[in-house]
Amino acid sequence: MAEDKNLSKIQQPPEIVVLGPPAIFRTYSKEFSSKFRLLKPWESPLPLAEFLEAHAHSTRAALCSGVFSLSAAVLANLPSLQLVVTTSAGLNHIDLVECRRRGIAVANAANIFSADVADLAVGLLLAVLRKISAGNRFVKNGFWPDLETYPLGFKLGCKKVGIVGLGSIGLELAKRLEPFGCEISYHSRNKKPFVPYVFYPDIFELAVASDILILCCALTEQTHHMINRGVLLALGKKGVIINIARGGVIDEKELVACLASGEIAGAGLDVFENEPCVPNELFGFDNVVLSPHCAVFTEESFGDLYELVSGNLEAFFLNKPLVSLVEME
Amino acid sequence: MAEDKNLSKIQQPPEIVVLGPPAIFRTYSKEFSSKFRLLKPWESPLPLAEFLEAHAHSTRAALCSGVFSLSAAVLANLPSLQLVVTTSAGLNHIDLVECRRRGIAVANAANIFSADVADLAVGLLLAVLRKISAGNRFVKNGFWPDLETYPLGFKLGCKKVGIVGLGSIGLELAKRLEPFGCEISYHSRNKKPFVPYVFYPDIFELAVASDILILCCALTEQTHHMINRGVLLALGKKGVIINIARGGVIDEKELVACLASGEIAGAGLDVFENEPCVPNELFGFDNVVLSPHCAVFTEESFGDLYELVSGNLEAFFLNKPLVSLVEME
Repeated sequence: MAEDKNLSKIQQPPEIVVLGPPAIFRTYSKEFSSKFRLLKPWESPLPLAEFLEAHAHSTRAALCSGVFSLSAAVLANLPSLQLVVTTSAGLNHIDLVECRRRGIAVANAANIFSADVADLAVGLLLAVLRKISAGNRFVKNGFWPDLETYPLGFKLGCKKVGIVGLGSIGLELAKRLEPFGCEISYHSRNKKPFVPYVFYPDIFELAVASDILILCCALTEQTHHMINRGVLLALGKKGVIINIARGGVIDEKELVACLASGEIAGAGLDVFENEPCVPNELFGFDNVVLSPHCAVFTEESFGDLYELVSGNLEAFFLNKPLVSLVEME
Repeated sequence: MAEDKNLSKIQQPPEIVVLGPPAIFRTYSKEFSSKFRLLKPWESPLPLAEFLEAHAHSTRAALCSGVFSLSAAVLANLPSLQLVVTTSAGLNHIDLVECRRRGIAVANAANIFSADVADLAVGLLLAVLRKISAGNRFVKNGFWPDLETYPLGFKLGCKKVGIVGLGSIGLELAKRLEPFGCEISYHSRNKKPFVPYVFYPDIFELAVASDILILCCALTEQTHHMINRGVLLALGKKGVIINIARGGVIDEKELVACLASGEIAGAGLDVFENEPCVPNELFGFDNVVLSPHCAVFTEESFGDLYELVSGNLEAFFLNKPLVSLVEME
């Protein structure tokens, strides 16, 4: 019998379980439905574990959002699972040790979002330095005719920018910041060859040397709360911090305290420790720009992501190599 | 008698009249006071014309803000005037014909602000495309925990950006946008030699070819209302417009109408036709980011501007060449 060349020749569409669900699933649910039989736990009154036990005993593939905690306990309810496709670049929400132990392959969004995330980092940085969101509120509240002066912002040019994590996003970011006249340096696990920026093996030293810190590293045991009170104080009273990595990279309580006491000058935050909960103290600060974890939320990226995610799922069911397999050591 | 080499040797500090007053005057008023005797019409109960007639009959130099209308009528009250130093790059607020006729020299801010203005243009563009100000309001209003989804924004990469006016600011802007992956073209009075971007002699054609228009031309008789309804419709329903030039370059009523009816997708505006009055209709649009004409408002630029402005005034009183004389044809 000839091997099936594409999914349309398979009589019964393959089954996947959707966990989260990821934001892209809402935008592209019709397209996913036309290719796959979808198990949607969130539409059931059953608790997740019971739902999976009842319906997903033989399900081989899962589509998972970047904020859904795919723990060993959840994985235990999916005994036939062979593939997890996450719509995120980050993997901190997945128990990778358990996946490796059980031989479950993981595919992610690879570098598909790097440009959009770097763009948002620049946008947040300019919004903080140049008071763009505060200015918008000032004009829209009708304050301009009454108050003659609007407070001065800060120039981006000549600022020393420390990039924390010089991966795909960090490199996109550096490329964008150079023509603004920024001086780039970085911290990462290892010094990168062929990179013209100054490397700081110690995050504290990078903070001392920087006017601005931009976080774009993965959240791991090593990076959890890497930005602690000491690093924030080293960044200093004129320092600005931008986080488009993961909330847990910063000790959020200390960040709030440093912003409240003026120990640092401002922050642009797309991510938080307990999303979607954001410390209320931050709501009143004009020098803080908050963003609802939407660094990857563009129509264009979602289109690209849909192609990548469905490409991974189709490849799996056709026994072809995955498009963006995560290499696990 | 030896010529005075610097102002400190002149017994009586020279007199200048301050018109506006410019924003920098507030920040650096002490420094100005230490170098010059200042006439401050706004502190007097007299109407401006009467104040000038009474006190400024022999005043030879004026320091003028970028929004103060230095008309022939005002100039008539300053019969001894030989120099106007404006704190703006733009000259549209000064009656240059009358200055030329009377032999009054004009010095401006030259290119001192170009980088800051280009930075704000990029910041406004990212704020509109990536919904940064709207996202900040969304989180600060506490909506995030209740509403699961935040609307998608648009990617800056691959967008066709039409720059209107490829002077110092326009070139700074192009340099910044290239690494974002934008495709740059431009409209200006003349095609620029040695520039790699496509030139459109017709603004309408540029709008047809662009996803985004960024205005950074001077306001002149030729550019007044250059962005009319036809150009806005040519930009189209997915088009975004950024104005960091002068409000009068756009027909503001038509812009409001096009935004209200969805004929264009969004706008980032630092300047308006009747500042500080802004059309109230714009206050309700999430796809419009407003800014109180503060493209040059950074601490760093104000420091540089103070040096340039006081340098021009000092040079004048010492009979030395002006630092940033405006060439008048």
